[in-house]
Amino acid sequence: MYQPRLETMPREELERLQLERLRRTLAHIQRNNPRYAQRFSGIAPEDLQDLSQVKELPFITKDELREAYPLGLACAPKEAFVRFHMSSGTTGTPVINPYTRADVEQWAEIMARCLAAAGVTAADVLQITPGFGLFNGGFGFHYGAERLGCFVVPIGPGRTLMQLKFIKDFRTTALGAIASYPLRLIEVAREEGFDFRETALRVGIFGAEVWSDETRRYIEEAMGIETFDIIGMTETGGVGLGIDCRAHEGIHVWEDHYLVEIVHPETGEVLPDGEEGEMVVTTLTREGLPLIRYRTRDITRILSRERCSCGRTMLRVDRIKGRTDDMLKVKGVNFYPRQIEEILMRHPETTPEYLIRIGKRAGKDFVEILVECRQRDESLREKLAEEIYNFLGFHAEVKLLSEGELPRHPGKAKRVERVEG
Amino acid sequence: MYQPRLETMPREELERLQLERLRRTLAHIQRNNPRYAQRFSGIAPEDLQDLSQVKELPFITKDELREAYPLGLACAPKEAFVRFHMSSGTTGTPVINPYTRADVEQWAEIMARCLAAAGVTAADVLQITPGFGLFNGGFGFHYGAERLGCFVVPIGPGRTLMQLKFIKDFRTTALGAIASYPLRLIEVAREEGFDFRETALRVGIFGAEVWSDETRRYIEEAMGIETFDIIGMTETGGVGLGIDCRAHEGIHVWEDHYLVEIVHPETGEVLPDGEEGEMVVTTLTREGLPLIRYRTRDITRILSRERCSCGRTMLRVDRIKGRTDDMLKVKGVNFYPRQIEEILMRHPETTPEYLIRIGKRAGKDFVEILVECRQRDESLREKLAEEIYNFLGFHAEVKLLSEGELPRHPGKAKRVERVEG
Repeated sequence: MYQPRLETMPREELERLQLERLRRTLAHIQRNNPRYAQRFSGIAPEDLQDLSQVKELPFITKDELREAYPLGLACAPKEAFVRFHMSSGTTGTPVINPYTRADVEQWAEIMARCLAAAGVTAADVLQITPGFGLFNGGFGFHYGAERLGCFVVPIGPGRTLMQLKFIKDFRTTALGAIASYPLRLIEVAREEGFDFRETALRVGIFGAEVWSDETRRYIEEAMGIETFDIIGMTETGGVGLGIDCRAHEGIHVWEDHYLVEIVHPETGEVLPDGEEGEMVVTTLTREGLPLIRYRTRDITRILSRERCSCGRTMLRVDRIKGRTDDMLKVKGVNFYPRQIEEILMRHPETTPEYLIRIGKRAGKDFVEILVECRQRDESLREKLAEEIYNFLGFHAEVKLLSEGELPRHPGKAKRVERVEG
Repeated sequence: MYQPRLETMPREELERLQLERLRRTLAHIQRNNPRYAQRFSGIAPEDLQDLSQVKELPFITKDELREAYPLGLACAPKEAFVRFHMSSGTTGTPVINPYTRADVEQWAEIMARCLAAAGVTAADVLQITPGFGLFNGGFGFHYGAERLGCFVVPIGPGRTLMQLKFIKDFRTTALGAIASYPLRLIEVAREEGFDFRETALRVGIFGAEVWSDETRRYIEEAMGIETFDIIGMTETGGVGLGIDCRAHEGIHVWEDHYLVEIVHPETGEVLPDGEEGEMVVTTLTREGLPLIRYRTRDITRILSRERCSCGRTMLRVDRIKGRTDDMLKVKGVNFYPRQIEEILMRHPETTPEYLIRIGKRAGKDFVEILVECRQRDESLREKLAEEIYNFLGFHAEVKLLSEGELPRHPGKAKRVERVEG
């Protein structure tokens, strides 16, 4: 639901609310989990007189959340928890985020806001394609849609032919997905002669992966929809931390629930607005796993704290450029997969399916870029190789593949492969 | 939640409520879906003066629900729907059950009642292992648990090692599952040296499949838990139509929401209490897909309409013996897989994994029964063959397999294989 009183609140008022909630969060940790509170020993909530003092508090990292498995950082008694979600992805110990009833309500509120910002109303049919269960994606959309009252097609991941059938049969108007999934839908639709222009699909809300502006335009064009970039993660309480509004001039962060800073990924120093760095999130209203200065590893920058043309005063961050742990370092050059994607996708002959293969061969670093193309010709290959050389400053081998040659993976797309030997 | 005012209501009062709700359901169909209402042309809601008159209304079958795909029998405008669930299993056109917001509330209410009948409270940790999404199992437990306030482990199906890990790490006390899944958990636990007796697991709520009393005892023994047999299906609004209480003297049907009859599977004639036949369900409170006299194909009988020792007045049906479409007919003999399962499971050397293979060989009917055993010896094989001969009246070939020889399937267990040629 759109909450204009909160979403368009004057910034001074918003910042007063943030300070008050920051103090309350700190007090909540100190009251409920003495071991967790030791991190802040010597700092009393009332010592914080100004939001900028948040930088006096220590960071917390994903590894620290992992080490707390299962409930070492939980700030409520077990009886108060109603569910948990778990970080997906990497192997090893997972991160568990336990939710109190109030946390579920908070999540429903911000997800309903996200859907509303994308123009979704109770009259829409929302097809939810992320997984339900431990992964937070499916349930995030579920709670938001339940709050809003839309008609949900709770299909979850995979079953691409059935997805297309339901888009048609239920006249689906809005699609929630992991950002690479629309590419699969488009691919199968082409094979099946399925035309998105004949459907009622209008809105796509995609996230959980880094996707370039070029991929975004490709999806919008192929599906005939307007897309919205949604952010959020298990650690912060799930998808829905923020989304771009219909002005598409940056991603609004729901600042009454989250305080964001951008810091230098190495020094941890807080960076001024406009400068690119790692997003650090402090939760202001979470009970189960409140976070003070969580290092998200997402690279972005603050675009504006001015009122947006949509009326919202909530600050806007740029679309996520990459994650610190996705950053590739080859021959002394740092780059993100998304930057390669942008170069590839500028050419209409390429498809959005690519793989960056890096490693050592005979003791020397190499980078190979495999990309599927509609037409394979030497001049395209040369053009891509040159553009990538201009960007990286060294030669990467470019290989053109036919459509369908790269393996498709369920869930998040795999864009990087490290080769040893 | 336990609702004593409703669950222990005197039967005359309950039957008055059922009659009123039956009339209201009929009126609801007539008001909202004229094509559906044609089935009842000439019958006005006020014509029904007595519950027994329900038999004047025509049956509706699963095939008719299928033919209505996607929303041909829906009794609310599309904007009023908040989600749908879909019948699992067979290929071909699915059955879609669209839910209004009130239908979700109704579902949450009956599922919370089921959990409460099994002794689950807000203090429990409930691990939900059926799938979330189109299949109704996962969301049924989800809504019930949300109403009750227990701590949910929303893991969904599969990942058996992680299931065991979570049972331990979150001190899971209650498990919701498709009835054959505990067998898989027990099997993997044995391989891993995992001891259920060292966990906090206390309650199992299992359904969606026919499982014999022998399998039930086996699970209770191996897991050290009390089990509850939950019934319900997509068509009636999902899992939660009824469950046995701690007295375990039959499955209570929530009669304020459902009217059940037992009919002769061939003639459709209503059978007296105690006689075995097909369960027919009329929904009394559903809005999206109200059903009048739905032929469930489940074979059971009414055990009692007397007050149960638990205090509930809601009638009790026997555990499901089989489904009319599971019934096997070989050499003129009709039998259900569950009856074979009962014979096999009486022997401690057998495991609960078996497969009935039927078909024609050289133009003649044959039945082969494959069962996994802890020990394979000829005398066991002969004993089983004789007991099955005594039951069927003809010779079936019994083959003893080692543990793990039969393929395991995700989702519902496969107990029958038809072989041609």
